[in-house]
Amino acid sequence: MSEKQLTIPEIYAKGKENLERAGVDWVYPPGRKLGPSVKANRKYLDSLFFEPKFFDPVDVDTSFTIFGAKLRTPVFCAAITRQPYMSETSLAEIARGVADAGSLIMLGIGGSPDLQSAIDTGAPVVKVVKPYRNTELIYEKVRDAESRGCVAVGMDIDHFYGLLKGDRVEMTETFSPQRTSELKQLISQTKLPFIIKGVLSVSDAEKAVQLGASTIIVSNHGSGSFDFSVPSMVALPKIVDSVGNKLTVLVDTGFETGNDVFKGLAFGAKAVGLATPMILAWAADGSRGAELLINQVTAELRRTMGGAGCTNLSAIKRATIIKMPLIQE
Amino acid sequence: MSEKQLTIPEIYAKGKENLERAGVDWVYPPGRKLGPSVKANRKYLDSLFFEPKFFDPVDVDTSFTIFGAKLRTPVFCAAITRQPYMSETSLAEIARGVADAGSLIMLGIGGSPDLQSAIDTGAPVVKVVKPYRNTELIYEKVRDAESRGCVAVGMDIDHFYGLLKGDRVEMTETFSPQRTSELKQLISQTKLPFIIKGVLSVSDAEKAVQLGASTIIVSNHGSGSFDFSVPSMVALPKIVDSVGNKLTVLVDTGFETGNDVFKGLAFGAKAVGLATPMILAWAADGSRGAELLINQVTAELRRTMGGAGCTNLSAIKRATIIKMPLIQE
Amino acid sequence: MSEKQLTIPEIYAKGKENLERAGVDWVYPPGRKLGPSVKANRKYLDSLFFEPKFFDPVDVDTSFTIFGAKLRTPVFCAAITRQPYMSETSLAEIARGVADAGSLIMLGIGGSPDLQSAIDTGAPVVKVVKPYRNTELIYEKVRDAESRGCVAVGMDIDHFYGLLKGDRVEMTETFSPQRTSELKQLISQTKLPFIIKGVLSVSDAEKAVQLGASTIIVSNHGSGSFDFSVPSMVALPKIVDSVGNKLTVLVDTGFETGNDVFKGLAFGAKAVGLATPMILAWAADGSRGAELLINQVTAELRRTMGGAGCTNLSAIKRATIIKMPLIQE
Amino acid sequence: MSEKQLTIPEIYAKGKENLERAGVDWVYPPGRKLGPSVKANRKYLDSLFFEPKFFDPVDVDTSFTIFGAKLRTPVFCAAITRQPYMSETSLAEIARGVADAGSLIMLGIGGSPDLQSAIDTGAPVVKVVKPYRNTELIYEKVRDAESRGCVAVGMDIDHFYGLLKGDRVEMTETFSPQRTSELKQLISQTKLPFIIKGVLSVSDAEKAVQLGASTIIVSNHGSGSFDFSVPSMVALPKIVDSVGNKLTVLVDTGFETGNDVFKGLAFGAKAVGLATPMILAWAADGSRGAELLINQVTAELRRTMGGAGCTNLSAIKRATIIKMPLIQE
Repeated sequence: MSEKQLTIPEIYAKGKENLERAGVDWVYPPGRKLGPSVKANRKYLDSLFFEPKFFDPVDVDTSFTIFGAKLRTPVFCAAITRQPYMSETSLAEIARGVADAGSLIMLGIGGSPDLQSAIDTGAPVVKVVKPYRNTELIYEKVRDAESRGCVAVGMDIDHFYGLLKGDRVEMTETFSPQRTSELKQLISQTKLPFIIKGVLSVSDAEKAVQLGASTIIVSNHGSGSFDFSVPSMVALPKIVDSVGNKLTVLVDTGFETGNDVFKGLAFGAKAVGLATPMILAWAADGSRGAELLINQVTAELRRTMGGAGCTNLSAIKRATIIKMPLIQE
Repeated sequence: MSEKQLTIPEIYAKGKENLERAGVDWVYPPGRKLGPSVKANRKYLDSLFFEPKFFDPVDVDTSFTIFGAKLRTPVFCAAITRQPYMSETSLAEIARGVADAGSLIMLGIGGSPDLQSAIDTGAPVVKVVKPYRNTELIYEKVRDAESRGCVAVGMDIDHFYGLLKGDRVEMTETFSPQRTSELKQLISQTKLPFIIKGVLSVSDAEKAVQLGASTIIVSNHGSGSFDFSVPSMVALPKIVDSVGNKLTVLVDTGFETGNDVFKGLAFGAKAVGLATPMILAWAADGSRGAELLINQVTAELRRTMGGAGCTNLSAIKRATIIKMPLIQE
Repeated sequence: MSEKQLTIPEIYAKGKENLERAGVDWVYPPGRKLGPSVKANRKYLDSLFFEPKFFDPVDVDTSFTIFGAKLRTPVFCAAITRQPYMSETSLAEIARGVADAGSLIMLGIGGSPDLQSAIDTGAPVVKVVKPYRNTELIYEKVRDAESRGCVAVGMDIDHFYGLLKGDRVEMTETFSPQRTSELKQLISQTKLPFIIKGVLSVSDAEKAVQLGASTIIVSNHGSGSFDFSVPSMVALPKIVDSVGNKLTVLVDTGFETGNDVFKGLAFGAKAVGLATPMILAWAADGSRGAELLINQVTAELRRTMGGAGCTNLSAIKRATIIKMPLIQE
Repeated sequence: MSEKQLTIPEIYAKGKENLERAGVDWVYPPGRKLGPSVKANRKYLDSLFFEPKFFDPVDVDTSFTIFGAKLRTPVFCAAITRQPYMSETSLAEIARGVADAGSLIMLGIGGSPDLQSAIDTGAPVVKVVKPYRNTELIYEKVRDAESRGCVAVGMDIDHFYGLLKGDRVEMTETFSPQRTSELKQLISQTKLPFIIKGVLSVSDAEKAVQLGASTIIVSNHGSGSFDFSVPSMVALPKIVDSVGNKLTVLVDTGFETGNDVFKGLAFGAKAVGLATPMILAWAADGSRGAELLINQVTAELRRTMGGAGCTNLSAIKRATIIKMPLIQE
């Protein structure tokens, strides 16, 4: 981490400033509203501290292998979609930054050109398919992802009942609940590892195991799914205790810093996704901004791992986290 | 739920705007003061999350039968009274919206014309009688309700000691505590189901059973009864555990959204009342506003039921609710 | 309680307004600073709710006998002192209001004329003597109180180490710690009941018993003693459990309303003192203001007692109080 | 404590005013940002109350011996460094105030002239050496401290991974993690008592014992080390329970008042360091400000010790502290 580069808060501030200058006073769907789950998640993250172990110093390794891709960091770009204020090359710019940082990117709604341009950067790309009412469209999207070279494919089950944009539910005609029997067939037919995104209960996590999923993402979909779904960091430990030895558990929603990532890993996730922060980083400085953000978040993670005496990602145990004693202000 | 219609927050905002334009800077008695109990109830509601179970999707049924009326929703219009800024047709407009939404309306203080005009809309109407010092007046009101076709009649026992309008206690000369022996006689003499409204303790709930009441409403009467009576959502589970199999338990005070209703049902209520929100909805768009609010609240309830894997109202269990772990901010 | 009279909040607002009009932007020593203990006490009071028991209605009696005086209310005027903005007749005006309300008044620092003028109103008067370094002065003050007809005499032990006025400690040369042996002698020599004021620990409460005190006041002295002494409502239940059957336990600091008084009684105090509120009530309307405040606070207490099914003061049990479940906002 | 002198809050206010007048709108590195750990520590301190024991009064002794120096107070000047807005004589001015108050001062980064000028005031001076990558430089600094007459020497291990200035990590090239084997050798070679500063876990505390350290300082380095290291007051009791009988445990970070110091001592520290407050006090009135602050903080400590019945520092037990019952606001 160069000491001259923008810090994490500076990246976010510059990204916001640039977007506002361009007339965009919001960043990412679903609208301007920060939902209760994501707010609760952020507060929860900010309430967690770590116990330093400065003795004896350790060499820190943040590398991480998933879907056959060897990454330099457990910080990945969670599923993003091209926004109205983006151009046709924007997602590719983010992907290039992700590639340069040695990380991985997930893409949400969007066509083949966006997907291809991201893959062309050399970044490992995951395609997250929507739960379309039109089953054939799902298969088509999955086959497209396979053929273009995605490293994995997935579905966000928290959009079964439409997406939440601010206070408004949208896409209820286009999306639809999917039965496990249907998904099991889909998963068995693709050669790619399959991700179930939006798991927040042990029940759904266990069903993901039965479906043959390789990975789940514990996620509130930012503020884009349900206002009062249990915050991902609250749901995470129970889910890890239940299925952590049967598939890979990732987490997202509300993570912003290296310390946040440290806490997500301590609660049992194998990697942590950032979505809105990646858009802000891109708005701050294009592909270099995206790269820088992952580098800076990873640098802070590495420093905290050092301070906590953790030599690699699996050494970050839940017991490293200290919860503040509850007080009455 | 049409995606083009006003959302719940938009309905409230428009209702407030319209009232303010008409020079009304308050909405509903008791005055402008939001009491401690209703504030605590709202905070409590906002602290509760639900555990999603997206697998396997269920068909959701929100229908609900009470007092012989088959309703399409467990969201009803809690007891309201004609306000100074309302005309002689306002309550009927609200009742018409309630009827169109397939719900039920309760009316408080007011004369026979208000009652009749509501009944004429076809909505199931409940008359809640005040605990008058003049016993004959109580019998008169009950007989009037019977003869006009109310589906049930009740009494708000939390007005035994007058009503609270802001910081001022009023009607202490008009209202009076009622003995169980007196109420038992009244209840035995009416053919209508009888509701005890304002129950907040197991003690009073058990007495309601002994009185022969068919239904209780766990309620703080908004801010209109006692400043520091235990918030209804706090009192609810204990009361349901005690008498839930002996009579029907409803709840109100502070509920605003479909997620709120979901939480009230999860804590054991069979249906949830909205009062101030219904006035705001009427102020927003008359009878169509009232209908829309119930529809939108029910739509949100239905969506959350889907996300929580609840096929009907009785499937919404207390265990579906997750309380945020306490943190120190 | 007349419905036309000022409410409790209105009394306080008018008192503040009158004082500000007279150029006084503070009310009562110690200065303008609200200390941590009194703030914590107020927050604690506001977090407590009561469980209504509307069935069956009871006749409510708030009468209370102490020091041989039969009072109509357990709300008394806690020890006050003539302030710079008061005239020579001000304390007598407050005492007259207290007498008219059927209550009792305690006086702090001040000379014989203030004491005599208060006694002349017919109110039961208690003299609270400071812990003077000059022992003879203490005896002189006690004898003066005896001869003029006070119903009891006491000492505020929380001023052993001076008083706190804002951030400044004063009177450390004038006041001094008193040994139990000295106080035991003093108490044995006066025929009046003796009050130890400022008890906040079981240890000091037990010593008060050994000293032969008739009464203790669990008190933080408002903000006038120690910034971080344990709030009186927190200390109260333990002290009552320990010595409640051996002497009379009173409480003050931060109480403002009838609901507050109800909570203090529920935690085991026999009566509750108001100091700053009494000054505000006097500033609002002289002796009539003082009378009105006690009446209104007692009226709210009586109403809540009715709502909680408490027929007299000793029926207000700790179990009547419900603490809000802790939530994460 | 003279009643005419500035109070503690007045000292801080005047110091800030003077600095702002001189164009300095921040006080102390690392920058203007108050980190999460120091904020949490302050909140935690403010949530703790003490149980008064006014009977029987005790004589209070705040004297304290450490590193062979007999101090009049357990309030010391935690490690400070010459700031850009200071002159060459500023640190000596602070040291003179410390000497006059009968306390001790610790110095951080800085050259021999600063160190010598502080020692020349007669104050006991401790040199805290940075964990330089250049081992020879460490030995040089330690030898310099020995030869000039420091009473002890130490190292802040929380700077192994650079220092945090606002959101920016600095000095990562200059500082470096130190192995216990290296430190053990250093400690064995100096005749001075050795302090390990920045201990926040039992693990590191036990290693400090093995290293032969005489003293540890439980510290977050203000906001200058890690954003989310466990607050020192949270870490303190466990560490004292583990190693308190094997070496001397001190504490700092966020302490401002005599009541704060009382709480730190009650949680097991032998003395409590103030850094930023000392700079403010110097800015308020030079060496006299520094002396006054220590005197006033000590006076408040002494008064609270009196009120809590503590005759000397070791009488301040953990049980003296009462935590507010948790409430829901």
